[in-house]
Amino acid sequence: MSIALVIPDRKLDALIEKLNMLLPGVLIQQWPHYTAPDQVQMAVVWKQPQGSLAALSNLKSLQSFGAGVDSIVSDPTLPDLPLSRIVDPALASSMVNYLAGIVLHYQLRLDVFQRQQQKQLWKPKSPRLIKHICVLGLGELGQAAAQYFVQQGYQVSGWSRSIKLLDGIESYAGEEGFIKAVSAADLVICLLPLTPDTNNFLNTERLRAFKAGAILVNVARGAIVDDAALLAALDSGQLQAACLDVFREEPLPAVDPYWQHPAVLVTPHCSAVTNVDTAIHQIVENYQRTLNGLPLMHLVNRERGY
Amino acid sequence: MSIALVIPDRKLDALIEKLNMLLPGVLIQQWPHYTAPDQVQMAVVWKQPQGSLAALSNLKSLQSFGAGVDSIVSDPTLPDLPLSRIVDPALASSMVNYLAGIVLHYQLRLDVFQRQQQKQLWKPKSPRLIKHICVLGLGELGQAAAQYFVQQGYQVSGWSRSIKLLDGIESYAGEEGFIKAVSAADLVICLLPLTPDTNNFLNTERLRAFKAGAILVNVARGAIVDDAALLAALDSGQLQAACLDVFREEPLPAVDPYWQHPAVLVTPHCSAVTNVDTAIHQIVENYQRTLNGLPLMHLVNRERGY
Repeated sequence: MSIALVIPDRKLDALIEKLNMLLPGVLIQQWPHYTAPDQVQMAVVWKQPQGSLAALSNLKSLQSFGAGVDSIVSDPTLPDLPLSRIVDPALASSMVNYLAGIVLHYQLRLDVFQRQQQKQLWKPKSPRLIKHICVLGLGELGQAAAQYFVQQGYQVSGWSRSIKLLDGIESYAGEEGFIKAVSAADLVICLLPLTPDTNNFLNTERLRAFKAGAILVNVARGAIVDDAALLAALDSGQLQAACLDVFREEPLPAVDPYWQHPAVLVTPHCSAVTNVDTAIHQIVENYQRTLNGLPLMHLVNRERGY
Repeated sequence: MSIALVIPDRKLDALIEKLNMLLPGVLIQQWPHYTAPDQVQMAVVWKQPQGSLAALSNLKSLQSFGAGVDSIVSDPTLPDLPLSRIVDPALASSMVNYLAGIVLHYQLRLDVFQRQQQKQLWKPKSPRLIKHICVLGLGELGQAAAQYFVQQGYQVSGWSRSIKLLDGIESYAGEEGFIKAVSAADLVICLLPLTPDTNNFLNTERLRAFKAGAILVNVARGAIVDDAALLAALDSGQLQAACLDVFREEPLPAVDPYWQHPAVLVTPHCSAVTNVDTAIHQIVENYQRTLNGLPLMHLVNRERGY
């Protein structure tokens, strides 16, 4: 009985310790140092290198270590096994907390005041009017965010692949629906999954549908944004500001123009990081289901990509 | 029947328009352009120049245009008349909104990430643990702030001149109480009134009572903080950061060291600005009370200073 952890570039001591506690007798093997690869029934994966699962000859299931699986399913060597993803209420509350902070950052004009501070400029201004927020993507995280902003008294529109009926949220789908969802929003939050359909989704044309002077917050995946189109929209003033937590390449290369752009706030992919304490229970549950031949919790539809 | 507005350096068009609408027939005169000073019964004042009320020979009452009255009572030429201050629920909600945004700013480490952005540094870090917030000053604004953070699940301690019994808030008074109130707080919010007792209140000794690495947010008055002591505490690391919205001299002079200090966030006195729409009703009510010889609403105790 064994679980493999295929999660490069991350300290896994806390995860290993908890798995040892909750699953005594189960051998936890860490890529690339497998000791008994043929004993592994389930692999916990995140941005796994190609071929890293090849030695696991008796693998029965795959558990993503995060909510998004784009970095997992993009691997052409990925075995065709049931794949589940983390659906973690703590992930949603960490995301909502980040978004609440970012909306207040712009509402209080902290971006403007910080630029003024660098120039010793004292120019009081009343808060930015952010009344209407649009959420692109109404999955677990998108719904949690949309509902939070409804509770806070904002007007909220949402856009997703299919229309979602959610209390207090104007829900749209389709290309015309996209225009309706974003055209009156002061701030647009991107929480779409990255799939072949959403790669470069926020391109010149779709950014042009935004309200003039809107603010974009991307907390989904960097590749959903056409970077050249976003930079052009910021330079023309079509967008007033962008807060980016995710990038096509992470870490963001030192030469990337986002770093120095005065209208861009860069945060290093920290809006919602999987919390070991809460994710652990789902990993343990899915391992037991794997052993018992039961369907996994939060199974990913690979066609759809989430 | 006339009201004088003695409010330098501020556009008063909206206020005058609303007073004209709500008090037809009442002459609104604006300092320094009095046309009939002897007709004025009430003066609305804010940072009035010395002697600016001398010509108002029939003045019966004074109405502060803000919540704090330190800039009014510090005028030695101020006539000994009833003085009332604005107690505006919109002022409290604007203050709470500002504080909520600042607490999230530090919790999400936006200060750190912005410094890293300037250096093209990608260093993800989990949020700062801000669990315990201390509020110094439990007047209208302090109570509103303390109650908000209790609702948000923070541990909240409060300190004021006399012990206040408030749900969910550990309340303290006195010098020993001060140490208890601040010693375990991750973030301390100053909402004290400025009086002779609180001038330079946050000095070296009291800042030393803060938890090592705490964050100070001053949204009260600049003179409550001993600036040299605060800068020394930031430089030594005793305090991790300070967000300052108020200063001994405003606008903050270009040469002031706060502007360039890497651990200081300067905002230009915008945490809670009197909202004309909501303050107007109290001004009108107090004018009517003045005409009818009734006691003013929200009368200031001049001895106490608030």
